[in-house]
Amino acid sequence: MAPHPFDQFSLKEIENSVAFIKAQHPGKTIHIKTVEREEPPKALMVPYLEAEKAGKNPIPPPRIGHCIYYVLENKAASELWVNLDEQKVTQYKELPKGAHPPVDPWEAADAQEAAFKHPDVLAALKKCGLESLKECLTTDGWMYGCDEEGDIPRYSQLLIYARDPKHNHPDSNMYAFPVPFVPVYDVLEKKIVRIDWCATGNDSDDSNGFNYNTLTEGKNVLETCKGNEYDPELVGKTRDDLKPYNVIQPEGTSFTLQGNLVTWQKWRFRVGFTPREGMVLHDLSFDGRSTFYRLSVSEMAVPYGDPRPPLHRKMAFDFGDCGGGKCANELSLGCDCLGTIKYFSGNLADPQGNAFTKQNVICMHEQDDGIAWKHTNYRTNVPAITRRRILVLQTILTVGNYEYIFAWHLDQAAGIKLEIRATGVVSTQYIDGGKHSKWGTVVSPSVLATSHQHIFSVRMDPAIDGYKKNTVAYCDTKTTPWDDLNPKGTAFLNETTYVEKSSTLMADIACNRYVKIVNENIKNPVSGNPVAYKLHAAPTALLMAQPGSIARKRAAFATKHFWVTKYKDNEFYAGGVWTNQSSKEVGGVQDAVNRNENVRDDDVVLWHSFGLTHHPRVEDFPVMPVEMMNIMLTPNDFFTRNPAIDVPQSTQKFNRSVEVMECRSCHM
Amino acid sequence: MAPHPFDQFSLKEIENSVAFIKAQHPGKTIHIKTVEREEPPKALMVPYLEAEKAGKNPIPPPRIGHCIYYVLENKAASELWVNLDEQKVTQYKELPKGAHPPVDPWEAADAQEAAFKHPDVLAALKKCGLESLKECLTTDGWMYGCDEEGDIPRYSQLLIYARDPKHNHPDSNMYAFPVPFVPVYDVLEKKIVRIDWCATGNDSDDSNGFNYNTLTEGKNVLETCKGNEYDPELVGKTRDDLKPYNVIQPEGTSFTLQGNLVTWQKWRFRVGFTPREGMVLHDLSFDGRSTFYRLSVSEMAVPYGDPRPPLHRKMAFDFGDCGGGKCANELSLGCDCLGTIKYFSGNLADPQGNAFTKQNVICMHEQDDGIAWKHTNYRTNVPAITRRRILVLQTILTVGNYEYIFAWHLDQAAGIKLEIRATGVVSTQYIDGGKHSKWGTVVSPSVLATSHQHIFSVRMDPAIDGYKKNTVAYCDTKTTPWDDLNPKGTAFLNETTYVEKSSTLMADIACNRYVKIVNENIKNPVSGNPVAYKLHAAPTALLMAQPGSIARKRAAFATKHFWVTKYKDNEFYAGGVWTNQSSKEVGGVQDAVNRNENVRDDDVVLWHSFGLTHHPRVEDFPVMPVEMMNIMLTPNDFFTRNPAIDVPQSTQKFNRSVEVMECRSCHM
Repeated sequence: MAPHPFDQFSLKEIENSVAFIKAQHPGKTIHIKTVEREEPPKALMVPYLEAEKAGKNPIPPPRIGHCIYYVLENKAASELWVNLDEQKVTQYKELPKGAHPPVDPWEAADAQEAAFKHPDVLAALKKCGLESLKECLTTDGWMYGCDEEGDIPRYSQLLIYARDPKHNHPDSNMYAFPVPFVPVYDVLEKKIVRIDWCATGNDSDDSNGFNYNTLTEGKNVLETCKGNEYDPELVGKTRDDLKPYNVIQPEGTSFTLQGNLVTWQKWRFRVGFTPREGMVLHDLSFDGRSTFYRLSVSEMAVPYGDPRPPLHRKMAFDFGDCGGGKCANELSLGCDCLGTIKYFSGNLADPQGNAFTKQNVICMHEQDDGIAWKHTNYRTNVPAITRRRILVLQTILTVGNYEYIFAWHLDQAAGIKLEIRATGVVSTQYIDGGKHSKWGTVVSPSVLATSHQHIFSVRMDPAIDGYKKNTVAYCDTKTTPWDDLNPKGTAFLNETTYVEKSSTLMADIACNRYVKIVNENIKNPVSGNPVAYKLHAAPTALLMAQPGSIARKRAAFATKHFWVTKYKDNEFYAGGVWTNQSSKEVGGVQDAVNRNENVRDDDVVLWHSFGLTHHPRVEDFPVMPVEMMNIMLTPNDFFTRNPAIDVPQSTQKFNRSVEVMECRSCHM
Repeated sequence: MAPHPFDQFSLKEIENSVAFIKAQHPGKTIHIKTVEREEPPKALMVPYLEAEKAGKNPIPPPRIGHCIYYVLENKAASELWVNLDEQKVTQYKELPKGAHPPVDPWEAADAQEAAFKHPDVLAALKKCGLESLKECLTTDGWMYGCDEEGDIPRYSQLLIYARDPKHNHPDSNMYAFPVPFVPVYDVLEKKIVRIDWCATGNDSDDSNGFNYNTLTEGKNVLETCKGNEYDPELVGKTRDDLKPYNVIQPEGTSFTLQGNLVTWQKWRFRVGFTPREGMVLHDLSFDGRSTFYRLSVSEMAVPYGDPRPPLHRKMAFDFGDCGGGKCANELSLGCDCLGTIKYFSGNLADPQGNAFTKQNVICMHEQDDGIAWKHTNYRTNVPAITRRRILVLQTILTVGNYEYIFAWHLDQAAGIKLEIRATGVVSTQYIDGGKHSKWGTVVSPSVLATSHQHIFSVRMDPAIDGYKKNTVAYCDTKTTPWDDLNPKGTAFLNETTYVEKSSTLMADIACNRYVKIVNENIKNPVSGNPVAYKLHAAPTALLMAQPGSIARKRAAFATKHFWVTKYKDNEFYAGGVWTNQSSKEVGGVQDAVNRNENVRDDDVVLWHSFGLTHHPRVEDFPVMPVEMMNIMLTPNDFFTRNPAIDVPQSTQKFNRSVEVMECRSCHM
C-alpha cells in the first residue's frame, strides 16, 4: 500500500535519503542526526485530504526527505532535502553560525569515554577519592545549557554518578551517588576542554557552598551517600496483597484500522510519528466534521533553579535538544499497557545512516473512564446513564534521568484530552553530608535534588469545520455594575474577544478566562454562536528565569500561556528550530508572533505553554510517583446537542460487574 | 457488632431518636428534616482511636442523636439532641429567627400540588396557552435564594416545565419546555403567595426582556420549543459499534473490610455517611501513620448570573439546602460502577420519622489508573515499571436538574485525589423563539441555559503524623535578584510561610503557590524538613457576585481559595449551618476565621474553595457530558522514599493484556 502523505518514512525511504547525503559529500564522514519525512505543505495537503474524503484517489504530494547531519571533517552541520519521487536533492544548506543540531546518545558515549581517560578528570576523581571505584562510575551526558551570547563550540557537560559501590549492579540507581565536578566536552573536537567543580555546601558556608578546595585529597566523597534503589532486583521484598486486575474485551476493540488511519466512535484520524515530536495526531474529524489538522507536543524546557555554576547550565529542551521520537520507549504488553493494545512503531536513522525501527513507540487502547453522563428523573426515579469509554494513545519518553508519559484521550463526546505524567528519577547533585540547601531538597544522604521546571508547549493546528478559516477567541467572565438591571449585584456574563493579530495571552483565573477556537463562518443553528472548540488550559506558573536572562531569551515560549500565530509550513517548534545551546529562540513562537500577521478568520495556530514547577520531595526518590496534569479540548456550540447522547446505556449485561458481598476481615 | 463511633446511625437508632422528638412534643405534628449521629467530640475520639490502634478495647463515646425538625402547629424549627446511651434528651432549642432548615422533596411536592390548584397559577397558565397541557406540566421546587436582609417566611419557588406534549412520556426532558413564570410558595402556610413573571426576551428589547405583557393570551408559548430527549426510550437509535469492556479480578479484590473499616495497600480508613455531607472519610492512615482525621465535601454554592427577577434568586447551596447524603443515588451494579464493587448504604428518616435505608449510596472498587512510576536505564535498556492501582470511593448526587459525581481516589503512593464530575441537565428558562441573550446560551429552541457557577468547598481536617499538632503553610516560588550568586538570572527557590492565625489565602499561579499541611514536630530524617502533605489545589475563578451583595454575604466561603481555621467540634459547613434562605453565612468558615485563633502547631482545619464557572454550551443539552475537575493531596517529605517503591513490577503474566495484530479495515 502506498504511504499516506502523513505517514512517516519507511526504512527504505530513510535509506534512500541517506544515499543522497553520502552522494552529496563523497569521501566524508557523516554523523546523521535526523532523517525524516518532511511534512507536506498545507496548500497541497488540504486539497488532497478533501479529495480523499470525497472518495477520490488524489495524487499525493511528493515524499520529501529532510536530513540533519554533520560532515565531521569540516565540522559543519548541514540540512539537505531530497525529493524521493524525483530522486533528487532539492535543497542543501549549512546551519547558521551558532546553531547546533540535537544531542544524541552516541555523542554522549564518546564524551564519557573521553572523560574517563582525561588526566584532569582522573586527577579530580583522585581528589574525590574515587580512583578505586572507576568501574562503578557512569555519566549523564547533558546538553550544555547556554548562558552567554556569541559563538560557543558544540559542548556537552557530563554529570558523573556512581552505581552503588557495594554491588555495582548495572541498574543500580546512580543518582544516589553524585560526583561533584562536571567535565565539559567539545563534541566536534572530541576532547575534554575543562572540568568545573560544583558547589557542594550551602549559602551559609563562607564559600557560598563552593567547598571543593576543602576536599580531603583521596577521601571518598561518596562515603556520605547511601544506596537508594528502584530496580526490582535491588528493592527486595514487595507488597504481596495486590490482586490481579484484567481488562477483557471479549468481542475485540471498538476501533478499526487502515494503516495509520483510525476510526473509533465517530472519530477519524491518523497516527503519526516524527523523530523530534514523537507522537503526532493528524486530520482529526468527528462524525464527518473536521476538528484539528494536527496536534502535537511541541517542546518542553527544563531549567534548574540552582544558580551556582556550573549547574546553572542545566537547562534542557527535551524535544529540540533530544527528540520526543528519538527518546520514545519501546512499550511492552502488559507492562506499559493494560487491555487490548494496538502498537505503532517509529523509524529512525542512526549516526551512520542505518535505518532502524523502534517497535511499539505508541500504544493505543480503549479504556473505561467512569461515567460519561447521567441524569435521574427524581420524580420517576428512572436514571439514564452511559459510561465514558476513551481511546488512549500513549507514548513514553526517557530523557536521561526523567520519564514523560504523554497520552491523548479521545472521548465519545468529541472531547480530546492530553494527559501528561512526569516520572523517572530527579536529576541530583552532591551536597556535603548533613547539609541542606535552599536550592533543593535532600532526597537521599548527600544527594540534593534541585528545584526545576518542566514547561511544555502544546501545538494545536485547528480545523474547526474547515481547514483554513479559524479564529482564536478568549472568553472572560465579567460582572456588570449594580444598576436597575442588576439590582442585587448578582449578574455575570461571558465576554468574548476575537484575536485579530498574531499575539500572546496570559491565563487569568480571576475572570475564568478560557481560550477557544472558532469558525466564524459557521453558526450553530441552535445557539447562533459560531462553532468552536474550547481549550481547558492549565493555568500554571511559567518560566522563572529573570527578564533579560539568556534562559528567558532561549525559552520565550515558556513566558506566556498562549501564543496565537499564523500557520506557516513546518513551523512546529515553539522553542525555536535549533534549541541545543541556543542563546535565543529562533524560529519559535515568539518570531511567529512578531510577524504581526492577521489571524482572524485565517489559518491560525494556537500554542499553549504550561508546566510543573518541581520542588522535589523525598518521595520523588529513588523514582518519582507520577505527577499528573492535563489539558482538554471540547466542542463548544460545535454540535446541536450532546454528541454522546447516542452512546448506549450502561447495563450490567454489557459490563458484567461483580458485587462484593458482606464478608468480614477477608480478602474478597 | 457494636457500632464504631464514626458509624452512622442504624435504623433502630434513628427510630429511637425520633421517639424522643415525639415525646418532646406530645400531640403535635412533626416534620422531620434530619436525624443523624452527631459526630463525637475530637477530645473523646482521639484517645479512643489511639487506644483502638494500640489493640485495646476502649469505651466508645456516647451515641448522640442530632435531630432537626418542624413542629408544624407552631411553625417552629427545632433542634434536639438525645443521648442514646443514657436514653435522655440532652439539649433542645428552637432555631434562631431567620434560620431555615433544608428543603426536601415532600415540601416540593406539596408546593407543586398547591400551585397547580391556585387560581393565579391557573390564570397564568391560561395566559401562556397551557390550559390544555396541564397533564404535561411539572415543577422543579427550588430553594428561594434570598436577596434581602430581614425575616422572610420559609418560601420555595417553582420553576415550571412541561414534558414534551407530543408524548408526555414520564421521563421526557422537561427542561426543553420551560414556562415563563414562577409561583412562590409559603411552605409553612402551605399556600402560593404570588407569581413572578420572568424575562423572556433580551436586553435589546424595549422591555429589557420583560415581555410578558405582550403575550398573546391563550397562545401556547411552548410552541417555539422542541423535544430534546436524553431518556434511552426516547433517544432512539444508539451507536452499535461499542464493544464490551469487562474488568475481571480473578482472585478478588485487594481490600479487606471490617464493618466500615477498609484496609487497602497500606491505607486504613473508615467510610462514613451523613445526611448533609454524604460520603465522609474518617481517620485515614498509611503504613500505620495517620494522615487525615476527616475528609469531606462541605458545601457547594450554585449562583446564576441572569440578574433579571425573579430568576436572580436561583442560588442553591446544594449541601446545606438539600444534602449530599439525602440526594445520593442508589448506585447500580454494572451501570454506575465497573469491576468488583463493594457498596455502602445510608440511613435516613422521612418527614414522619420513619427510618429507611438508601441502598448503595457509596460504591468502592479498585481501578487500574495507568502507570504509577517508571524508569528505564538507557545504558542497559532495562525498565522498571509499576502500574497505578487506585481505590475509588464514589457517590453520585441528584440535586434537581444536576448530577454531581464525587470520588475519592486513594493511591499506592499515599496520595488522595478528589475527582468531581458535573453532569445532569442544565437548569433552563424560557426565551422568546429566535432570540438570544447575553445571560446564557440558547441550548434548544426557546430554551436559555444561563451562566452559573458551582463553587465547592472541601474540608480537610489533617492528622499529619498525629491528631492535634499541625500547621498550614504556603509555598511560593521566588526568584532571587541578579547578583554574584545569581550571575545568569536563573535562580529560583521555594519559600515557605507558616500560617499563624486563622485566616484566608488566595491561589497565585504566577508564583506557583501551593498550600501544605505540616507537622512541625516531626522532621523528615532525610530532608530535614517537617513532614507534610501538599494540596494540589484547583486555582479557579471564585464567586462573581458583587462585593456587598447578599449573594456574596451568603457564600463568603466562595470568595477565597483557602480558609485556615482552628478545629471546633461540629464545625463542618463552610457556607454556614443554615444556608437555606440565609442572608449571610453564619457558622461557616468566615466566622471561624474571624475568631482569630492560633492555628500554628495546633488543631488546624484547611478548607479549599474552587469551582466551575459554567457558560453552557449547546453540547450540555439535553444532558451534559461530564465536566471534570480534581484536587489532590500527596505526601511531601512525609516518607523517606517513594512509598510505592515496593509495589510489584507490572508484568504481562499478572496483567494478561492482548495485542491487536495487523488487520485492515476490521473490528478486532
